[in-house]
Amino acid sequence: MTVNLEAPKKLLPVRGVRLAACASGIKKKPLTDLVLIELNDNANCSAVFTQNRFRAAPVIIAEKNLGVSSPKLLMINSGNANAGTGATGFDDAISTCNYAATAIGCDNEQVLPFSTGVIGEPLPTSCFEVALPALVDKLETDAWLTAAQGIMTTDTVAKGFSRQFEIDDVSITLTGIAKGSGMIKPNMATMLSYIATDANIDKQLLSDCLRSSVELSFNSITVDGDTSTNDSCVLVATGESGVAEIKTKDHRYDAFMVVLNEAMQYLAQAIVRDAEGVTKFVEIKILNALSYKDAKTVAYTVAHSPLVKTALFASDPNWGRILAAVGRAEIDSLDIDKLSIYLDDVCIVSNGSRDEKYTEAAGQRVMSGSEIVITIDLSAGDERASVWTSDLSYDYVKINAEYRT
Amino acid sequence: MTVNLEAPKKLLPVRGVRLAACASGIKKKPLTDLVLIELNDNANCSAVFTQNRFRAAPVIIAEKNLGVSSPKLLMINSGNANAGTGATGFDDAISTCNYAATAIGCDNEQVLPFSTGVIGEPLPTSCFEVALPALVDKLETDAWLTAAQGIMTTDTVAKGFSRQFEIDDVSITLTGIAKGSGMIKPNMATMLSYIATDANIDKQLLSDCLRSSVELSFNSITVDGDTSTNDSCVLVATGESGVAEIKTKDHRYDAFMVVLNEAMQYLAQAIVRDAEGVTKFVEIKILNALSYKDAKTVAYTVAHSPLVKTALFASDPNWGRILAAVGRAEIDSLDIDKLSIYLDDVCIVSNGSRDEKYTEAAGQRVMSGSEIVITIDLSAGDERASVWTSDLSYDYVKINAEYRT
Repeated sequence: MTVNLEAPKKLLPVRGVRLAACASGIKKKPLTDLVLIELNDNANCSAVFTQNRFRAAPVIIAEKNLGVSSPKLLMINSGNANAGTGATGFDDAISTCNYAATAIGCDNEQVLPFSTGVIGEPLPTSCFEVALPALVDKLETDAWLTAAQGIMTTDTVAKGFSRQFEIDDVSITLTGIAKGSGMIKPNMATMLSYIATDANIDKQLLSDCLRSSVELSFNSITVDGDTSTNDSCVLVATGESGVAEIKTKDHRYDAFMVVLNEAMQYLAQAIVRDAEGVTKFVEIKILNALSYKDAKTVAYTVAHSPLVKTALFASDPNWGRILAAVGRAEIDSLDIDKLSIYLDDVCIVSNGSRDEKYTEAAGQRVMSGSEIVITIDLSAGDERASVWTSDLSYDYVKINAEYRT
Repeated sequence: MTVNLEAPKKLLPVRGVRLAACASGIKKKPLTDLVLIELNDNANCSAVFTQNRFRAAPVIIAEKNLGVSSPKLLMINSGNANAGTGATGFDDAISTCNYAATAIGCDNEQVLPFSTGVIGEPLPTSCFEVALPALVDKLETDAWLTAAQGIMTTDTVAKGFSRQFEIDDVSITLTGIAKGSGMIKPNMATMLSYIATDANIDKQLLSDCLRSSVELSFNSITVDGDTSTNDSCVLVATGESGVAEIKTKDHRYDAFMVVLNEAMQYLAQAIVRDAEGVTKFVEIKILNALSYKDAKTVAYTVAHSPLVKTALFASDPNWGRILAAVGRAEIDSLDIDKLSIYLDDVCIVSNGSRDEKYTEAAGQRVMSGSEIVITIDLSAGDERASVWTSDLSYDYVKINAEYRT
């Protein structure tokens, strides 16, 4: 199941971007598993990649190619992560780039490869070799939804976001897609998200946009605390809208960032709403922390607690588990006696112990919902942060116990 | 279920220690829930307590009393943790000490209170007031097994260890009990363990013994990564054996430490063998780390990974998840290309990728067992550490979703 998430009905084309997807045979079942995203020649492209020390071969190659070329093609396969595959995995990733470059007519280094799926299995490169020439012929502007479906693994719903807005009276489009459902505690980005706009944005500034927005979206979600080996998030600005290049953090930058932040938060939260086994969508909101880092640490400690997550699954207002999780968070500024905790608008803990007016019935009412905000007020400063997470259910265990069978 | 764990058939009395237990009514069902451990006047007593910042009232009082008195009585209740109960919780813990001191005839501060059970509910002190006078009359030396049963909460099996050994031709007894099954990632000790010996050990040295042994036992296990608010571990030396006082780290100290380490490792591992929902008992063994701290960090990162734990439950040799967990461990000294991983004696990863000789059948054979050693060789130095953990099963979710219902 999912929590209040439906597949997008339509995703708007972005001028300067063409896409295509097919079932190339990487997945055992005949499901879409190979996606191409072609960029116009003037596009600026920025990306962030997993900070897991085990980076998959395609991640390393994509980052290297991005540094030395103007990307022409993003090539994404699902069904196989090409991770933990050693030297052969590198050779395979490079081979697939070569096949794509030949098919589309660009330098090998203008292809950025991305892979998601099972770790440790050899990448079936022949699927790429056979499928790519015909797939290139299918490239079209109105295929974002097909692409969103093509990058899914354990996702149950395709994830996408589109918005039209204006900058200086010029109509701008921003469309993004993402996938992810398990092994989700992104550190820089999550596997995988691709966002494009036809705005015209300076390359260095585009990188700032991406990093700033990632922190408040993909770097603020967790399902199971496991950072993937393949996390990648790519932001493209094609400039095809005709709007003048955005070079500084002016009003046009601000207008763009509002939409970018909305898109990335939507996509990041969509991953949690479709988390493996999810029955609850939960925001852990930390208020009045001494530092943003402290706030994130407390939020993630609560969000990763199996005891909190199972209590959420059971709709049990077991606030003692939240309190115990806060108490083990590794921050120096924790003053228990000043701490308050709320379930939505119900105060459960004040001054470090059960609030006098709290009733189990009030807590139960909140916990019975499918969307819950747990607010933790540290009364230590004026920083805040939110992390979005899911509960821990039977189905989480089932999905992950049966993943490879 | 448990993994290769049975309740002890008999636990040896320790000269200088008397015990008693009863069903005082704290637990709803008529189960043993109140335990007394009386110490002789000359006993030395050392203890370590949870490092969770939310420390339950009894933990704070026990630590304070230990600092200002020679403990005469350890009083332990199960069924209620008296945690997150604010000022009332403190008053309640002090009241129960007073009841016990009156009943036994000692100073209030010579009573160390311990509580385990549900967090956030008021402690029913009247149960203590009514039960204590008669319970004191029941104190006897041969009641360790009854005490082990009396401190259980979600434990399915009572946990105890006894050993007779000799120091300088004098017969020494060491007996210990422990409880714990969930909210297990002790940080100094686990809720709860009591170990007594009739050896005669200098008080400061006894504290060193406890701290050294705790690090390799209770501080090296995890079930769910959640550190309890009530963790406590107490070590008592009554001196009643007649052996001369051990004051330095001589051969007698060494002889004692061999047995103490064995006892504490047995009890700590018994908690994992009886972990909530356990089907596998797993050692995460880190070899050739740059530092002991690095080794523990990697071991705990793997041991806490929900994806590794569900793969263990499924008997799935999904080594990619182990590799991904190692890759996100927060240590600086990780060189992926030097890393090897073994399931028991089967090498699955060498030089950072799948070992050439590895076969899925060989991995499957190991994973099908109920006791598994995952060895991770970091090739970075010569330090090592082990952490013991359990898998993540449907029953873990069930037990924790239904805990308060």
